[in-house]
Amino acid sequence: MTRLNEIPFVKGHGTGNDFVLIPDLDGRRGLSVDQVRWLCDRRRGIGGDGVLRVVRTEHMPEFAEWSGIAEFFMDYRNSDGTVAEMCGNGARVFVRYLRATGLITDDEIVIGTRGGLRTAILRGDGIITIDMGAAHTAEADVTVRANGHEWSAVPVFAPNPHAVTFIEALSEAGDLSQPPEVRSGDLFPSGTNVEFVVPEGERHVSMRVHERGVGETHSCGTGACAVAWAARRRDGVEGGDTTYRVDVPGGTLEVTETAAGALLLTGPADLVAKGNVLLPL
Amino acid sequence: MTRLNEIPFVKGHGTGNDFVLIPDLDGRRGLSVDQVRWLCDRRRGIGGDGVLRVVRTEHMPEFAEWSGIAEFFMDYRNSDGTVAEMCGNGARVFVRYLRATGLITDDEIVIGTRGGLRTAILRGDGIITIDMGAAHTAEADVTVRANGHEWSAVPVFAPNPHAVTFIEALSEAGDLSQPPEVRSGDLFPSGTNVEFVVPEGERHVSMRVHERGVGETHSCGTGACAVAWAARRRDGVEGGDTTYRVDVPGGTLEVTETAAGALLLTGPADLVAKGNVLLPL
Repeated sequence: MTRLNEIPFVKGHGTGNDFVLIPDLDGRRGLSVDQVRWLCDRRRGIGGDGVLRVVRTEHMPEFAEWSGIAEFFMDYRNSDGTVAEMCGNGARVFVRYLRATGLITDDEIVIGTRGGLRTAILRGDGIITIDMGAAHTAEADVTVRANGHEWSAVPVFAPNPHAVTFIEALSEAGDLSQPPEVRSGDLFPSGTNVEFVVPEGERHVSMRVHERGVGETHSCGTGACAVAWAARRRDGVEGGDTTYRVDVPGGTLEVTETAAGALLLTGPADLVAKGNVLLPL
Repeated sequence: MTRLNEIPFVKGHGTGNDFVLIPDLDGRRGLSVDQVRWLCDRRRGIGGDGVLRVVRTEHMPEFAEWSGIAEFFMDYRNSDGTVAEMCGNGARVFVRYLRATGLITDDEIVIGTRGGLRTAILRGDGIITIDMGAAHTAEADVTVRANGHEWSAVPVFAPNPHAVTFIEALSEAGDLSQPPEVRSGDLFPSGTNVEFVVPEGERHVSMRVHERGVGETHSCGTGACAVAWAARRRDGVEGGDTTYRVDVPGGTLEVTETAAGALLLTGPADLVAKGNVLLPL
């Protein structure tokens, strides 16, 4: 059971979006593409939607100037080994880990991500809020086709692209193992996430999501933000801070849009296991 | 990170068939159906095709009489929490764990399973052989339909039921997310596993498998045994010990049928992580 490349890990999830956390505070370890893929392999490795490498920001060469503001940097990798700018569910799990291990003690902190600095607020019950920044739309006709139906959709950039599609019942979207067909002119040159949304009540919606390059997932943090942003405008809600409940297949999230336009994503983050992984690579 | 129900675990796999091992040597812990399901949950728990609870045989009330022969009992549970008699890939991972943790030191041991006592032989390179016992067939016309094709199949009991279906190319079976249709009169009252097999060379076959109640899997130990048993008879190989190489989607297994009729399943077993899991139940 003991090999030279035995390294610590923690596994956690936020509304079913799951991650392998690898502490690498001094940035010496790094993680190769093959190592990330192996860690995320659900049968031959640990299994996860992505890896969160935990690094002190001073050891991230491109981001070291933030180290006075954000002590820790979330080096997020997709399960295929590529880097991604931001992951709202991952950020909650990342912050939960920092607190659980005593690396932070404050209830409000700033972390570094490739998508910028992000403020996080911890509640005592494991519920964490991440400031995801603002969203915007674009002037474009977007249509989404799935399961023999066609709908018009609202384009939302949060800042990654989403086609938010209001439908009558979540089952209408059918099998989402294949990507829905999206027509948007040249609005989404690299493709888009697609959300199917059903109004459930006052400031309450449910959704399914097809994530670009991944497939249907249990939860998508930026998708929930995009959906709440679009639902508020569809409902014509004016005024200050407005909170929507967003039910995703893996649980429930809340999105508050502040008067200043920031989207605050709130939800649970659970740590389920810790140990050592025997990296074969 | 510390809760009262923090318990040790190990994760391992054999040709992609993966398991969560829970040491419970004195049998005090037990595992509820809900705990097994949670452990096997690939997003909210650890993730696995099943759980292997490691117990001293003397602490398994129905099997304690074996404790003089088999010191350890493999309490195998399916991912839905039900018990199963035997799992060939799981048995290799179980034995690898016993050796890695120093619970055994011999190269040949006997373990207890609900399917009976099983002899295991360890090689130095992590390759392990399990004596899976004998297989038999039945007089019956069995047909298998999948992907718009229909074939006749060989029924094999190893001792769980298999419909071994020789085809031209593994892709012919098409999408196996739904069970193939099997017609067998009343031969398989509780359903059957279905193997699709392609001859690849002398004593060498490749296969895909749809496991009853599970779906298409990366590997199935009893399925590989059933396939080798049927291939040998199809090829008319007479004489003493005969070994077939069986390529499964998750790797390569070997099945030796001895002159006495025992099927010896040989393949790798890898342990990939160890730690503590924070059982929420």
